[in-house]
Amino acid sequence: MVFGLARRELRPRVPLRPGEGEKHRLTSLEGLAALSLDALSSVAYGPEAIVIALVAAGTGALSATLPVTLAIVFLLAALVVSYAQVIAVHPDGGGAYAVAKKDLGPTASLLAAASLVVDYVLTVAVSLSAGADALASAFPALAHDKLPVCLAGLALLTVVNLRGVAESARVLMLPTVLFIMTILGVVVIDLLRSHPAAVVGTPLSFPPKESLGLLLLLKAFSSGCSALTGVEAIANAVPTFRAPRVRRAQRTELMLGALLGVMLIGLAVLIRRDHVAPRGEVTVLAQLTAGAFGTGWPYYATNLVVTLVLGLAANTSFGGLPVLMSLLARDHRLPHLFGLRAERPVYRYGVLALALLAAVLLLATEADTHRLIPLFAIGVFIGFTLSQLGLVLHWARDKPAGWRRRALINGTGALLTTLAGVILLTTKFLAGAWVVVVAVPLLMLLFARIQRYYTAVGEELGLGRVPAPPDRRTASLVIVPLGEVSKLARHAIGAALSLGDEVVAVAVHADPAKSRALRESWERWNPGVRLDVIDSPSRSLVQPIVDYVQRAARDGRQIAVLIPEVEPRHRRYEILQNQRGLLLATVLRARTDVVVCLLPYRLGL
Amino acid sequence: MVFGLARRELRPRVPLRPGEGEKHRLTSLEGLAALSLDALSSVAYGPEAIVIALVAAGTGALSATLPVTLAIVFLLAALVVSYAQVIAVHPDGGGAYAVAKKDLGPTASLLAAASLVVDYVLTVAVSLSAGADALASAFPALAHDKLPVCLAGLALLTVVNLRGVAESARVLMLPTVLFIMTILGVVVIDLLRSHPAAVVGTPLSFPPKESLGLLLLLKAFSSGCSALTGVEAIANAVPTFRAPRVRRAQRTELMLGALLGVMLIGLAVLIRRDHVAPRGEVTVLAQLTAGAFGTGWPYYATNLVVTLVLGLAANTSFGGLPVLMSLLARDHRLPHLFGLRAERPVYRYGVLALALLAAVLLLATEADTHRLIPLFAIGVFIGFTLSQLGLVLHWARDKPAGWRRRALINGTGALLTTLAGVILLTTKFLAGAWVVVVAVPLLMLLFARIQRYYTAVGEELGLGRVPAPPDRRTASLVIVPLGEVSKLARHAIGAALSLGDEVVAVAVHADPAKSRALRESWERWNPGVRLDVIDSPSRSLVQPIVDYVQRAARDGRQIAVLIPEVEPRHRRYEILQNQRGLLLATVLRARTDVVVCLLPYRLGL
Repeated sequence: MVFGLARRELRPRVPLRPGEGEKHRLTSLEGLAALSLDALSSVAYGPEAIVIALVAAGTGALSATLPVTLAIVFLLAALVVSYAQVIAVHPDGGGAYAVAKKDLGPTASLLAAASLVVDYVLTVAVSLSAGADALASAFPALAHDKLPVCLAGLALLTVVNLRGVAESARVLMLPTVLFIMTILGVVVIDLLRSHPAAVVGTPLSFPPKESLGLLLLLKAFSSGCSALTGVEAIANAVPTFRAPRVRRAQRTELMLGALLGVMLIGLAVLIRRDHVAPRGEVTVLAQLTAGAFGTGWPYYATNLVVTLVLGLAANTSFGGLPVLMSLLARDHRLPHLFGLRAERPVYRYGVLALALLAAVLLLATEADTHRLIPLFAIGVFIGFTLSQLGLVLHWARDKPAGWRRRALINGTGALLTTLAGVILLTTKFLAGAWVVVVAVPLLMLLFARIQRYYTAVGEELGLGRVPAPPDRRTASLVIVPLGEVSKLARHAIGAALSLGDEVVAVAVHADPAKSRALRESWERWNPGVRLDVIDSPSRSLVQPIVDYVQRAARDGRQIAVLIPEVEPRHRRYEILQNQRGLLLATVLRARTDVVVCLLPYRLGL
Repeated sequence: MVFGLARRELRPRVPLRPGEGEKHRLTSLEGLAALSLDALSSVAYGPEAIVIALVAAGTGALSATLPVTLAIVFLLAALVVSYAQVIAVHPDGGGAYAVAKKDLGPTASLLAAASLVVDYVLTVAVSLSAGADALASAFPALAHDKLPVCLAGLALLTVVNLRGVAESARVLMLPTVLFIMTILGVVVIDLLRSHPAAVVGTPLSFPPKESLGLLLLLKAFSSGCSALTGVEAIANAVPTFRAPRVRRAQRTELMLGALLGVMLIGLAVLIRRDHVAPRGEVTVLAQLTAGAFGTGWPYYATNLVVTLVLGLAANTSFGGLPVLMSLLARDHRLPHLFGLRAERPVYRYGVLALALLAAVLLLATEADTHRLIPLFAIGVFIGFTLSQLGLVLHWARDKPAGWRRRALINGTGALLTTLAGVILLTTKFLAGAWVVVVAVPLLMLLFARIQRYYTAVGEELGLGRVPAPPDRRTASLVIVPLGEVSKLARHAIGAALSLGDEVVAVAVHADPAKSRALRESWERWNPGVRLDVIDSPSRSLVQPIVDYVQRAARDGRQIAVLIPEVEPRHRRYEILQNQRGLLLATVLRARTDVVVCLLPYRLGL
């Protein structure tokens, strides 16, 4: 609030550097490469989540994977069509928070913000834990060290993002293409085989614990919905596309939907045909990979590609959450420090907050993907629903040609995602969804309270009103605390004389002999400034100066305390200097209302 | 170096508060209670160290405990007589560092300081680990958690000493008297019994690994010398005694020597008679306690008293090392921050440094007393030797009546402690003494390098010379970075007008619309001060202001940047404020030579 940057435009997930022109923007295919990683990588854990849910009714129930997947793909289709309209209406991008703020009002925008925060954090946690699963499928020795693997990955992402990455869509093209080819390769080659090339993992027995009823199917559906996370990324990033932006972004959204749908259905068909079931420490995707490629090097390569892509998917949150937090900070809903960038173009505090929250989540769930999944999709579905709902209101308000059909499409989308969200919440409540149910309102409350605080401060500072004219005090006094007569003292007194109407030097000594010696050398120097020496038998240094300053402040003059500081040239000497001055400055700032001035004196060594 | 307190008098281990008069000073007996804990508590590990060394030649060799103990007590007697003379010559106390500085010159004082640092740290580590041993003897469940027990104890001591303890000799009287009575009780009652009341611990077999030759006896002697640590404490604290100080302190020193000697010999006699040998997780002292009192409540009570006293012995280092470090800081041999006390009369950095070093040591040795003992006594013996040697030089220089006899006493002391030190070093070198041999010279080097740095800085600042008269710049310019027109702006401009010949406000905005709005509200307010708005399309905030300030500084005027800061009333709101101002202040201080002023604006909330 001291001095503010103007609120910036909503920043897309893949930011443009200043000076990037049209030819640096994305074509449809480039957009797919750059923006689909988060969504596509969820095939690594979505189908598996369905299998794990269904197996509660025994391995026989796994044949229901295909119908459940078809229901999810139907929802995906509805979402994709619906998002094509979001793209048309919000060509500036912006995502659920911006849309909700514009169309649905403050409470909905708080809800969107809270659920997005939860979503971003979970994307990091789930992507990392699924990545560790994929890695452990290739290297079983890691099976019991998934938590350290995840935390190491998180640390790497944090360091990279604190340094600032020259993020470029093109860097992501190669892994995305590699991933799409690999997954499609698994599907096609496995389908061409009469039986799996290899079977990996330890077979486990699954005695049916419940019957394959509607509830179990709904549970499997809600678990599988985790495969839909990330579908909104393209709609958030329309400005990064080359003109005609809207058409290109819509095409990319449809391509993403088609690809994801084909992958999910293909994997579901294979799961049924190959009788895939949860097996020891090998993921479903790894089992299908072994079925297609055998257990030679392509098996290892595929698992490594999957791990890499999941790591990059986790990284998308590091692009997203700090930006969202900076927007919240500019809306006064988070501490302003989250909007702060210093030397590097990096929201340092946002990156650290994300890393911290993801680490807590990984530690709490021991990096177990199946314990994270129930928390995952809810936040996303809140965002989905809010976006669609906002659009329905938009159509109803503006009533353009064909608005009824459009409102119907988005209304259906909103209805389906609401339904899916409710299913998710009810079937997964005790399994972990309650965490989100608690966290989202708490976050909303936090944002609202912070906003209230800043509003009250703005009120107190009289923001937006014309203040009274500034009132120049009649005189000013600059107090210079000193220890010895030296060039440092000369430098400080010189600066103080330029600033104050009156200057006085003050020293604290515990030893009368020292006091006398100082007085004598002061008289020899005779700088034309009074020196007050305070005797402090208690050997306290700071308190006597604070008392002195408070006494001086009583006559209404403007008081400044000028503290000269020796600044060594080399950083390694810093511990040898400066501590007393900074301590005094801190105490004076806490206890008095005077101006505290720090004057550096640079040493040659 | 910014402003210095005079170097203080040497501070005794038990400090006097200002205003404490003669009647608050210690009598001989009170002095014994207050100052002997460190020395007396070493009977908890000294005899045990002898037993552990001797058992290498089989349990039969343990009968040599008594002669080895007698040799140690002989050394103790020499030390006590020698220290009685130290007390007479240095009635101001001061310890090895002060004495070495006065009588032996800078190198010896560096040696004394380095060995004292090592000694203080080891006192903490050994006392805590021996305390954990005593506790584990009473509660075997703790036997495998000694490290956490030690670290918890260390944390407790650190917190208590950071808060500052109202240290009082009288507080220590009760535990000291309890400890002396307990140990003497063990000795007397066990001697009165015809056979031990109870035998505790698991018997272990000790096949002889070497013969009981001179080398082994020397090893046992050097291990047992750990029982002599702390004997110097009284000589360091003569000023805390009531007049006649010297006589009372000498009497206390003799009482301490007699008590410690009696305890050591008594325990050695019992070790021989009861055939005590290292037994599982039960200490030698605990075995003797069981022999005297049985295994009922007195056994538990004794072990708890021993634990308590060892904890208090560890605490004496927290009284000693931070004070020593502050003396070193005042001699410019450690960073000045170690001489810094702020709100509380506590050398915070010294306490933290001690805690850190002791924790490292405990972690490195897994809180194993027997791995710490070989490091322990060497530092102490260096201090012993230097004190005696200093006194020999003193006698030879001043030649008072009977100086030859006195020099002989101190010379014998120096010779014996040198001999003991050499024995310690040679027999224990590979077992850990090498750590001290490496650490002491490194510390001396560190002290010397720091002193050299401070001397060079003093040279550069022209300390002790009369500087040129201060030079008042022709004019001053105060730059006030602002974000909005508000009461904060009014407050800041008012203060700036009192301080500078010219004042200019500066704002950074990324958004031209925002810039325009600010300019307009500035004109409406019309505070009589120019506003410069910098457009920063790169959205960077700090760099444009730094550039602006550097440009302004070119014309030779005295530049001050006055940064207003909103200070919330409640600490919990602090995270919501201030970050940008402090960031700007930090960068300005690092990159420019201007005066950086912070002006608090206190909120009502």
